[in-house]
Amino acid sequence: MTIGVFDSGVGGLTVLRAVHRRLPEVGTAYLGDTARVPYGTRSKETVTRYALNAARLLVERESLGALVVACNTASALALDALRDKLDVPVIGVVEPTAARAVSESKNGRIGIIGTPGTIHSGAYEREVRRLNPEAQTFARACPLFVPLAEEGWTSGDDEIARLIAERYLAPFREDGIDTLILGCTHYPLLEGIIEQTLPNVVLADAAEAVAAALELEPSARPEKTPLRRYYVTDVPKGFRLVAERFLGREIEELLEVDLG
Amino acid sequence: MTIGVFDSGVGGLTVLRAVHRRLPEVGTAYLGDTARVPYGTRSKETVTRYALNAARLLVERESLGALVVACNTASALALDALRDKLDVPVIGVVEPTAARAVSESKNGRIGIIGTPGTIHSGAYEREVRRLNPEAQTFARACPLFVPLAEEGWTSGDDEIARLIAERYLAPFREDGIDTLILGCTHYPLLEGIIEQTLPNVVLADAAEAVAAALELEPSARPEKTPLRRYYVTDVPKGFRLVAERFLGREIEELLEVDLG
Repeated sequence: MTIGVFDSGVGGLTVLRAVHRRLPEVGTAYLGDTARVPYGTRSKETVTRYALNAARLLVERESLGALVVACNTASALALDALRDKLDVPVIGVVEPTAARAVSESKNGRIGIIGTPGTIHSGAYEREVRRLNPEAQTFARACPLFVPLAEEGWTSGDDEIARLIAERYLAPFREDGIDTLILGCTHYPLLEGIIEQTLPNVVLADAAEAVAAALELEPSARPEKTPLRRYYVTDVPKGFRLVAERFLGREIEELLEVDLG
Repeated sequence: MTIGVFDSGVGGLTVLRAVHRRLPEVGTAYLGDTARVPYGTRSKETVTRYALNAARLLVERESLGALVVACNTASALALDALRDKLDVPVIGVVEPTAARAVSESKNGRIGIIGTPGTIHSGAYEREVRRLNPEAQTFARACPLFVPLAEEGWTSGDDEIARLIAERYLAPFREDGIDTLILGCTHYPLLEGIIEQTLPNVVLADAAEAVAAALELEPSARPEKTPLRRYYVTDVPKGFRLVAERFLGREIEELLEVDLG
């Protein structure tokens, strides 16, 4: 059985990277809908249609044991539809990451960062409050973090990265948070710089939370020769460089597919 | 007669701002396809379909004297189709901006900055070389400039803006350019910081170049009470704030339309 990981673009490769680390002997198939990225600006109907369409391609081509929806927007808007229409267990990023944050936080003050779309959706706040109605949440959009991660300007010595992180994250010190949800698949690349900026805050990262949730899936069984396949709907120039930066290793087999 | 200005999102408002400045008595209608932004990652067929669709809405609702395609991607991919299908004069951003750069440059060494999509398309380079086969072009994508402009971190005192501009633009000093094409509608907001970084370089800005080209259009006639209407296909949270930053004034009449 193969674990499918679906994202609107390259960001979900950070989730796949964590899956590879935790479950090195499980076969994986990634699908990045790079032709239609980003999902964050589209309607619920469109996101649901795209996500179903993408998920079905993975189900048809691979013998899936579970499907991870690494895309924050699709997790927030299309998870019920995917669970309804597909016969495999579907794991989104919002639930396990919020659960991790709630269990890590001691003072119940939880920060959330993400793209403007994710922050305005309020999905993480709702999930945190569902799990702990006493929790207080502080959410901020960090629009420069995505291009920063894609450029690879993520080192703790990088003055630009340092200053941007300081400007976005300093208000969380005033808020007194002890836990911060990284509500965007790009942000694990910035973990070092975020830790440096908020040294006493625990980071709740979707990649680790999802990989931990997957360990509990009975279908995530080790294989003798686990395959790792990568489907994308478009291969923009420079794609491999950025993708391998996110994945942290070489992409062996990159297949371009057409979702129409 | 009204001047229509079409863009995939808010960026084209910098072009509209220049039109308002140069032709204050001409009525204008703006259409930002904010539901389907960005166009840069889509195929030529999709961009052409979206652009035709958007242009037709303006033609149906307004009595257009000319249509400005402020979107770089649509200018590069869909201008011929628009000229073919529409009965009004169509002005893109690539041709007037490249023409301005070629006429300003004394040493024939011309820099080009834009989004990764625009830079990889090579549209500005082709147009510069068509106008001056002897010209040498140096093109660089600057992915952090768009979110920087949208955040409003554009002041010359802003350390982050200064460092990002220095990192992206310093290589142009080595190249010895004397003219730089701002190949993205967001970049006029960064003009101050770009001038500060490359003080001896002339900036060729689409907004000014297009507004100058419009002055030559016989249909751009003054009106007693020029209307200024703004159509968008989606109103994301915080839209008005960002839009008014780009336009440099208040948006009187914002209409949401559905392009399907």
